[in-house]
Amino acid sequence: MNPSRKEFFKQAGAIVLGVAAGAGGTSLVSYAAPQSAAPTLPNPPWGYSKLDPQAAAERAYKGYYEAACMYGAFTGIVGELAAKAGPPYSSFPAMMMKYGEAGVVGWGTLCGALNGAAAAVYLLYAPAAGKPIINELYAWYGVEPLPVYRPRNPKRADTIVSSVSDSQLCHISITKWCLKSGFKSESPQRAERCARLAASVAYRAVELLNLQADGKFRPAHATTAAAARCLSCHGKGGMVDNVHISGQTSCTLCHADLSKHPVPIP
Amino acid sequence: MNPSRKEFFKQAGAIVLGVAAGAGGTSLVSYAAPQSAAPTLPNPPWGYSKLDPQAAAERAYKGYYEAACMYGAFTGIVGELAAKAGPPYSSFPAMMMKYGEAGVVGWGTLCGALNGAAAAVYLLYAPAAGKPIINELYAWYGVEPLPVYRPRNPKRADTIVSSVSDSQLCHISITKWCLKSGFKSESPQRAERCARLAASVAYRAVELLNLQADGKFRPAHATTAAAARCLSCHGKGGMVDNVHISGQTSCTLCHADLSKHPVPIP
Repeated sequence: MNPSRKEFFKQAGAIVLGVAAGAGGTSLVSYAAPQSAAPTLPNPPWGYSKLDPQAAAERAYKGYYEAACMYGAFTGIVGELAAKAGPPYSSFPAMMMKYGEAGVVGWGTLCGALNGAAAAVYLLYAPAAGKPIINELYAWYGVEPLPVYRPRNPKRADTIVSSVSDSQLCHISITKWCLKSGFKSESPQRAERCARLAASVAYRAVELLNLQADGKFRPAHATTAAAARCLSCHGKGGMVDNVHISGQTSCTLCHADLSKHPVPIP
Repeated sequence: MNPSRKEFFKQAGAIVLGVAAGAGGTSLVSYAAPQSAAPTLPNPPWGYSKLDPQAAAERAYKGYYEAACMYGAFTGIVGELAAKAGPPYSSFPAMMMKYGEAGVVGWGTLCGALNGAAAAVYLLYAPAAGKPIINELYAWYGVEPLPVYRPRNPKRADTIVSSVSDSQLCHISITKWCLKSGFKSESPQRAERCARLAASVAYRAVELLNLQADGKFRPAHATTAAAARCLSCHGKGGMVDNVHISGQTSCTLCHADLSKHPVPIP
């Protein structure tokens, strides 16, 4: 259980090679064996310098088709910094972000574009500056008709309609779009929609990061009035305090039937 | 908009210093200015060598109190590798994972422990090997009474009851625990519960990673029969195909009222 460092890496390398051989070998191509004189990277935050939102969106769009939504949004931001400035941005193992695909490997939880954008924000800014940016981005995502960004050279000529998700979850966001567009969730049109969504999120995130860089960031979206009403009892400091949610777009999307609410709703 | 590389970093550094000064200065301590001879890290997957699940759980528990749930679960795994093997594991800017706190900065979406564990899995294994591990971990989380891990030296002496979440979402997981335990969501007991949850998830993830390393990993949990019934029409290849979910614990947790389902449910 406690091999020497050399033995440890020998084991790790053998495992990766074994896995690659047994699973199509895709990892073999990109795997570089750790070296004893391996480098270290700075701790976050790494700092941010203003980017062109459209360039970030185009990179996110392309990134979606390489490794899905979370990677797309993340590389739209961090990949643009890498292209401009090289390391440490270019050293980040960004391909790991593929895990966020479709609400994490298909589980439909958090929208991957939002997951990737938030990861990028905390890599670049300390929490005190990054958290308000994420709050604004998430609140915007819940109420904005998306996707809003049209790439310069779209992969598909289809008209991609926009829809409001009322939620930050992949499952709800996609189902609302399917109901409005008439396309199925596994259709290429839905994939194109998510590529443009990742681009839209990267675009908006960079706009917010640029405002922060200029000292001009001000939140424009907040928890909706309807959700705030629920949180006045169920949220932090409320009488019930049992939901652990600081920001939200809609509670009644899931809690649709309030007829059994134990007390009259104020 | 296109400063030289030197100018770019000058701007980035100035921004970070400015933000730190304006927001309590916590970033100033950990910020290391990027250098022109900055290092590069290998692309993922970085490879994995077996860990002690208990050591990972203890590190996750401690990590929770340093930078919350996502960081806790992530560092429980990657931090253990770093302690054993140094770089590249020790070079990862792990503190960025604080963003996943409480379903991403308080939004109650994906449980941060699950977000952090999934990020670690895709850093270490290629998707073909990593995805089944995440599927198993997420399915297990949905049905298991959690937390299940008790740290060696708990910060609190309270008895922390376990609850089944039926969901991978922070909001649902915490509310179910609050309803069962009687503690409020902002209570220190709930924080202790989440610390032990991050430890439980890290423990289970390492068990699965170890099985994969030994070539013995076999999925033990799957989408529940109830959810599979819904997905047979609404999921991939189904007649409706409008939910974009590959794995799930419960559909009826949110879709509680099926009385208006447009066709008889098979």
